[in-house]
Amino acid sequence: MQQTIKTAGLLVIGDEILSGRTKDTNTNAIALRLTETGINLREVRVIPDETDIIVAALRDFSVRFDYVFTTGGIGPTHDDKTAQAVAIAFDAPLERNAEAYARMVRHYGGESEMNPGRAKMADIPFGAALIDNPVSIAPGFIVKNVHVMAGVPHIMAAMLDSITPRLKGGPKVHSFSVSAAMGESRIAPGLEAIQNKYPDLSIGSYPRFNPAGPSVTLVARGTDAALAQKAVNDIAAEIRRLGGEPVFE
Amino acid sequence: MQQTIKTAGLLVIGDEILSGRTKDTNTNAIALRLTETGINLREVRVIPDETDIIVAALRDFSVRFDYVFTTGGIGPTHDDKTAQAVAIAFDAPLERNAEAYARMVRHYGGESEMNPGRAKMADIPFGAALIDNPVSIAPGFIVKNVHVMAGVPHIMAAMLDSITPRLKGGPKVHSFSVSAAMGESRIAPGLEAIQNKYPDLSIGSYPRFNPAGPSVTLVARGTDAALAQKAVNDIAAEIRRLGGEPVFE
Repeated sequence: MQQTIKTAGLLVIGDEILSGRTKDTNTNAIALRLTETGINLREVRVIPDETDIIVAALRDFSVRFDYVFTTGGIGPTHDDKTAQAVAIAFDAPLERNAEAYARMVRHYGGESEMNPGRAKMADIPFGAALIDNPVSIAPGFIVKNVHVMAGVPHIMAAMLDSITPRLKGGPKVHSFSVSAAMGESRIAPGLEAIQNKYPDLSIGSYPRFNPAGPSVTLVARGTDAALAQKAVNDIAAEIRRLGGEPVFE
Repeated sequence: MQQTIKTAGLLVIGDEILSGRTKDTNTNAIALRLTETGINLREVRVIPDETDIIVAALRDFSVRFDYVFTTGGIGPTHDDKTAQAVAIAFDAPLERNAEAYARMVRHYGGESEMNPGRAKMADIPFGAALIDNPVSIAPGFIVKNVHVMAGVPHIMAAMLDSITPRLKGGPKVHSFSVSAAMGESRIAPGLEAIQNKYPDLSIGSYPRFNPAGPSVTLVARGTDAALAQKAVNDIAAEIRRLGGEPVFE
């Protein structure tokens, strides 16, 4: 029985990433989670806090990928534009979400603690499902196939945990690797032959440079674990043939 | 005299970023350098090692931005597809670049050391300018407005240093910030009023969550340094009005 490959796109929303002020760490956390879940992350796009650009990217990604994830832009301040952009992109107007509002009232200790900034975080596109936020309560949300999460890494991680059980992956990609203390150019021809021998696998070569001399890690990835392991054994044999010592990771 | 804003797009090319195997650190290094240079990074796109996708992204970015930068995919192995993609995108066929080849022969200690993998790194689109690589010699290159760099961070950094003097920025964006130990929702209304007062500035709010309680950093960015400083002073006054203590960074 053939399972369909599931794809995803990630929109990282925030001027602070593009200016270099903030280092994005969410991409790697989401990429690892999707790989574990059997979802193939096909594109990450970092875009500014500009409604038109966010709307266009949401519409584009929503039709191109099975799952779309966004990080950033759902806080209480004027520069948080993601919820409004989702509302425009999918014609789902922002409404005060009663459940989200109630959670926040409970968390902050009463209606009197709900200033306009906090209330803004309960304004969510009509019909959205909420994403639990055990860290700071104000929820993320899901509209169509778009999963809208916070940008603060600790909160994003909690929201990602909340949605993971609902994500339906396809066949999982298995990855095996072997390293050697040699320049990658030496193994390039043998590696290409091995890639041609296993067209269903993706074989990658990742060099490192350090003062002691070059080294390289060769990775075979594919949905057939036994096949990927076989390819890595072939690569190890090629490393030995070239006089090197394969190191399995 | 009004200077034109210069824009840039960055293509991060590599399956290993999308799978989560590798954490991309090049984006932040390039973002910071562009900000210092007065170039406005408008989009970062992470894409897989697939020629068609790279070609389409190169063509799209090349017309949309003043400067395009790419990282990854110019090594000696079969999964390095960036040079071929640039050749296709801009109809500039790959040719053995004599200068690149000569540099590598010198570096490796003679023609006999030039295996096919190394020679592949001297196959560069016709008419390209070379980007010096003092770390591992095999150069990057420039075709039209596209600057093609290595993916290994240490090599990318050396190539970025090589091209920086040639980048012509527009007016530099200055950034000032102030922090306070309060939730960002409290300052949200005052901050929006300050943003409205200074439409030429971009004012951002960046919360942090930690066990001791919330804190927030407010940032004013713009090409007029005095104006950005003035806005930050207004924000500090608003923090004091709310009973907080502004901390300048």
